[in-house]
Amino acid sequence: MIYVGNKPVMSYVLAVVTQFNNGFDDVVIKARGRAISRAVDTAEVVKNKFMPNVEIKDIKVGTEVIEGEGGDKANVSSMEITMKTKA
Amino acid sequence: MIYVGNKPVMSYVLAVVTQFNNGFDDVVIKARGRAISRAVDTAEVVKNKFMPNVEIKDIKVGTEVIEGEGGDKANVSSMEITMKTKA
Repeated sequence: MIYVGNKPVMSYVLAVVTQFNNGFDDVVIKARGRAISRAVDTAEVVKNKFMPNVEIKDIKVGTEVIEGEGGDKANVSSMEITMKTKA
Repeated sequence: MIYVGNKPVMSYVLAVVTQFNNGFDDVVIKARGRAISRAVDTAEVVKNKFMPNVEIKDIKVGTEVIEGEGGDKANVSSMEITMKTKA
């Protein structure tokens, strides 16, 4: 599982490529909130620029509850992109 | 088709709900670049807060080429979320 945050997209691309090169058949890219668009960028760059034999298998979205310091809660969208090597 | 841009999420939520209320069985929410996370927020808010009988049917991501004023090109990620009323 690769958690996408605020680093440059290429950091996460490298992490995904490394997992595939280490023998994983599936790699899950996960992000919340504004990082979601960066997760999509990561999947697209892996697929189009580095690993043509890898495809997007599944995309799930959901809502998570984040609790702030004062106990206040907020909803944030989340996304999981599962990539896999083509059969 | 609802194109998600830089307006508040609730603008797009209202647009989606209106399309369903006008009789559409499917509504497609589309976004590019940083607006992708707002498209996910839109789908989640529609489903969780307004229309419990609506679900996410499909999520597609892709890459589009944008051409700038000087003819320079850049890739941008895109996403389409298809929502539909439950059978």
